[in-house]
Amino acid sequence: MGDATGDGDQRMTRATLDIETSHSALEREIERPWFRHFITILIVINAVVLGILTYRESLSPGLVRALEVFDIAVTWVFATEILLKLVVYRLQFFKSGWNWFDFVVIGVSMIPGSAAFSVLRAMRVLRVLRLLHIVPVMKRITEALMKALPGMGAIFAVLALVTYVGAVMATNMFGDTSDPDVALLFGDLPKSAYSLFQVMTMDGWRFEVVQKVIDDGNPYAWIFFIIFIFIASFAILNLFIALVVDALASEQKALLEEGLEDIEDEIEEEFEDAHAQRDEILKALNAMRAEIAELKQLVDTRQK
Amino acid sequence: MGDATGDGDQRMTRATLDIETSHSALEREIERPWFRHFITILIVINAVVLGILTYRESLSPGLVRALEVFDIAVTWVFATEILLKLVVYRLQFFKSGWNWFDFVVIGVSMIPGSAAFSVLRAMRVLRVLRLLHIVPVMKRITEALMKALPGMGAIFAVLALVTYVGAVMATNMFGDTSDPDVALLFGDLPKSAYSLFQVMTMDGWRFEVVQKVIDDGNPYAWIFFIIFIFIASFAILNLFIALVVDALASEQKALLEEGLEDIEDEIEEEFEDAHAQRDEILKALNAMRAEIAELKQLVDTRQK
Amino acid sequence: MGDATGDGDQRMTRATLDIETSHSALEREIERPWFRHFITILIVINAVVLGILTYRESLSPGLVRALEVFDIAVTWVFATEILLKLVVYRLQFFKSGWNWFDFVVIGVSMIPGSAAFSVLRAMRVLRVLRLLHIVPVMKRITEALMKALPGMGAIFAVLALVTYVGAVMATNMFGDTSDPDVALLFGDLPKSAYSLFQVMTMDGWRFEVVQKVIDDGNPYAWIFFIIFIFIASFAILNLFIALVVDALASEQKALLEEGLEDIEDEIEEEFEDAHAQRDEILKALNAMRAEIAELKQLVDTRQK
Amino acid sequence: MGDATGDGDQRMTRATLDIETSHSALEREIERPWFRHFITILIVINAVVLGILTYRESLSPGLVRALEVFDIAVTWVFATEILLKLVVYRLQFFKSGWNWFDFVVIGVSMIPGSAAFSVLRAMRVLRVLRLLHIVPVMKRITEALMKALPGMGAIFAVLALVTYVGAVMATNMFGDTSDPDVALLFGDLPKSAYSLFQVMTMDGWRFEVVQKVIDDGNPYAWIFFIIFIFIASFAILNLFIALVVDALASEQKALLEEGLEDIEDEIEEEFEDAHAQRDEILKALNAMRAEIAELKQLVDTRQK
Repeated sequence: MGDATGDGDQRMTRATLDIETSHSALEREIERPWFRHFITILIVINAVVLGILTYRESLSPGLVRALEVFDIAVTWVFATEILLKLVVYRLQFFKSGWNWFDFVVIGVSMIPGSAAFSVLRAMRVLRVLRLLHIVPVMKRITEALMKALPGMGAIFAVLALVTYVGAVMATNMFGDTSDPDVALLFGDLPKSAYSLFQVMTMDGWRFEVVQKVIDDGNPYAWIFFIIFIFIASFAILNLFIALVVDALASEQKALLEEGLEDIEDEIEEEFEDAHAQRDEILKALNAMRAEIAELKQLVDTRQK
Repeated sequence: MGDATGDGDQRMTRATLDIETSHSALEREIERPWFRHFITILIVINAVVLGILTYRESLSPGLVRALEVFDIAVTWVFATEILLKLVVYRLQFFKSGWNWFDFVVIGVSMIPGSAAFSVLRAMRVLRVLRLLHIVPVMKRITEALMKALPGMGAIFAVLALVTYVGAVMATNMFGDTSDPDVALLFGDLPKSAYSLFQVMTMDGWRFEVVQKVIDDGNPYAWIFFIIFIFIASFAILNLFIALVVDALASEQKALLEEGLEDIEDEIEEEFEDAHAQRDEILKALNAMRAEIAELKQLVDTRQK
Repeated sequence: MGDATGDGDQRMTRATLDIETSHSALEREIERPWFRHFITILIVINAVVLGILTYRESLSPGLVRALEVFDIAVTWVFATEILLKLVVYRLQFFKSGWNWFDFVVIGVSMIPGSAAFSVLRAMRVLRVLRLLHIVPVMKRITEALMKALPGMGAIFAVLALVTYVGAVMATNMFGDTSDPDVALLFGDLPKSAYSLFQVMTMDGWRFEVVQKVIDDGNPYAWIFFIIFIFIASFAILNLFIALVVDALASEQKALLEEGLEDIEDEIEEEFEDAHAQRDEILKALNAMRAEIAELKQLVDTRQK
Repeated sequence: MGDATGDGDQRMTRATLDIETSHSALEREIERPWFRHFITILIVINAVVLGILTYRESLSPGLVRALEVFDIAVTWVFATEILLKLVVYRLQFFKSGWNWFDFVVIGVSMIPGSAAFSVLRAMRVLRVLRLLHIVPVMKRITEALMKALPGMGAIFAVLALVTYVGAVMATNMFGDTSDPDVALLFGDLPKSAYSLFQVMTMDGWRFEVVQKVIDDGNPYAWIFFIIFIFIASFAILNLFIALVVDALASEQKALLEEGLEDIEDEIEEEFEDAHAQRDEILKALNAMRAEIAELKQLVDTRQK
């Protein structure tokens, strides 16, 4: 960053220095609490406005217009905020996942003509999710959730593989049908995967899925689905257990290590004390030996 | 409270003292087991009566009348109980959440004409929930549950935010429809939030919700819902894990600390013992040095 | 038991002694592995026979007759087994919950005319559940499950109370209806409790329950159900967490205590060792003091 | 294995030795990373091809033919791989469960005429599951899942027994019916077990199962199902808790043992140090005693 590298550089021209200085001044402003609070409040108001705008049919056209102008203004404020950050942090900006998130979410709002498409208009509200990393309490939770993701990766891959294999099998076995219900369920690969996901969630698995396949001339289809349910539930169960155990083990490890360190410290201290005392004993003994030696010499000399 | 402040106050008039004394006598009565047992039994009987009154259509009008009179009488007993507590504890009364609960629950029963509205009549039964803090075993559970609430706050806020954003998006994308089924699901913001809550509970999410939206001309709606299910399930899963880990970690901490303290105590005791023994050794050594010194002097004097 | 009390009793008549002896011989037989294995195998075969008998329509009448005779024979074997145990253990027999279970389950099978009622006939198969305490592996599991029950008691009572209050409220608010669907759901107190249990299991809660109530002229019914779902889910969640934490804490406690005891033992041993060594030092010191005293005397006497 | 046993055997003929050597060379190749990577990539491509082949209706016949030829070629590569392993490891091959899995999965693909049966064609995709043990990350997960299986065995047996008993009872009580819906649910033993499994998953238990039975003239059927739901949920809950506790306890045990061992080592070291110091003290004391003895003798001899 500007202020860090520009500090000790003697050959830097005055102009650059000015820019650098203004950058670091800007950075200070951007990182100040009042700026974050301002943005937070703006997002909350914007969230409410976007909520009110879902009632556009029952509002007066004037109010709708006013709220939309406000929404566009807010979009520009957010765009300016991102621009400021880009100017200050330059490429460092893109090192943070949250900045990418902001960039994409605001970018989507500024696609021209987006108001015409309900999907693009709907995605404008995603910017409210910026709260997830602007409000500190939520940021802590969100980042904790994200830290749990990699640990789930491998089991998730196993689940995805099992679902893919199951979907190919189901499409082969049940997909070639004239029953529109079954075609909707297992007509092609994505549909089969989607239906197997439904079965995994246990929602209406029997009469909405399996029974329709059975009635379509596959009397033994239930075997396939029961096996799938068992494998998927078992994998999900273990995914869950792994997460609990992981979370606990690390918590526990810290606790245990701290406690054991306390004991070790106590023991060490006591032993140091004991060591010192024994040293004193040894010193006393040596002093005594010296005295005895002296005494012996005394007796010895007298003897001569 | 009366007995505490009135005790040492010499300038207090005789009249006030009498009232204070009667207050503390009243307080003693209110806090006595027999009083709590009496109220408990009254609530249980009242609960049964309110249960029987749900069959009012098939009961003789006389019995219904008698039970309703009993119910009103019980209401007055409870109101008197609260009044007594108000007299005894005054503003201290409102420092306890449970007292507020009693106050509101009994207050609702006494709204004039409440018998005419089924909702108000139904709310009279809420007073049975007073058992939750009057029966000690239940009180312990209920307060344990409540202590878990703040820990859930932040994840709950994240879930609420995600649901709000999802509801605004869903209303924008699917709400403007002529299909009454989809209008029921996503016609306005509260309906969308409610439907997303249904999806979160995994109840009939595919054919009661997603498929209807797809059939209404949103062929890619499933993408939105699958993402929502993943995010919500994942957040709930982590909410749950956080609670388990929290509960265990504190339990564990207590256990570990106790165990380690035991060891430390044992070690300290043993070290004190050793220290005493070493002290004895040192004392013996010093005594010996004194004797040697004496001996040396003896030899020395003889030498002269 | 016979063998224990009869042993040392000198005045006992010869006849009683014989009976006592035969009792303890009988007890030995009953407790022998071969007897348990025989009963186990008989139950398994009986389970299979009862399974086959569910196909009575498609079996030849002769086979059905044969299997039923076998079933009656097995019932008599089990009845004899219980009778033998009653003779041996007398009133001690009823101290075991499992014996009560066997007694009731076999008793039900022997109600005359039970074959005529499908419910009583169905209950004959309950005797197969005797495997739960006869097969050691299953007995361990079943007893572990039962040990978890009391820990669930208090939360269970809270859940039951909340459901009762909710059911009274729902019956009052929604029960007085002309819609047969809603009458089925909330027509009387047990129906309401049953429907609230359905809502608790999250099965079809929205369109099978809540929506029907809303359509019946209670537009705000969803508020009641959402609150109920939150309270119930939260209570169940905490019930679950309490069980996990309990199970872990006790497991943990044992582990920790064992580990810490090991350390304490080790420390104690080491300290004993050190104590012995210090004793040796002290003894050496005392010996030396004696020698010095002697020496002093020697010098002293020579001085005179 | 060849290389191990052939090594020291002097009487082996030259020919056998050559084969043995070529075996171990082959083994080296088979175990090399490049071979595993090659097989992994082949499986992934094969998975994609099998996925594309589910769209056979919409693909040009030429492409379908080409992909099928590729699939057959891949099958032969896998068959050759297994054959190579069989040659190298001989009967050792069948000691690994994964080898059995590969053997069966590839064997199924090679059943002549399998292309004609959709089920057999569908099972060809099972070979994609070989990734579960070929990709190391997935292998770790899969084997962890499998290690959890035996721990579930006993509770699983209890659940199966309860379901069997419940299914026999349900078939006896509800199976003899003219209502086709109820006949589908409880018409025979497997159907009853399947319906009870549905009830266990809580999917549509009330209106898809219990209500139909009630409407068929069994007004008290809900009692049976409520009891079944409670028992099954409770058993599943405990199954789950047992797994969590087991996983955690072992994790914990390792942690605790390690930590305690650290302390014990530290203590032992400190005590050794202390012991050495005390030894020094004793040595000093003994030296002193010797000197005093000498001194005494000196005084003694002088006395004479």
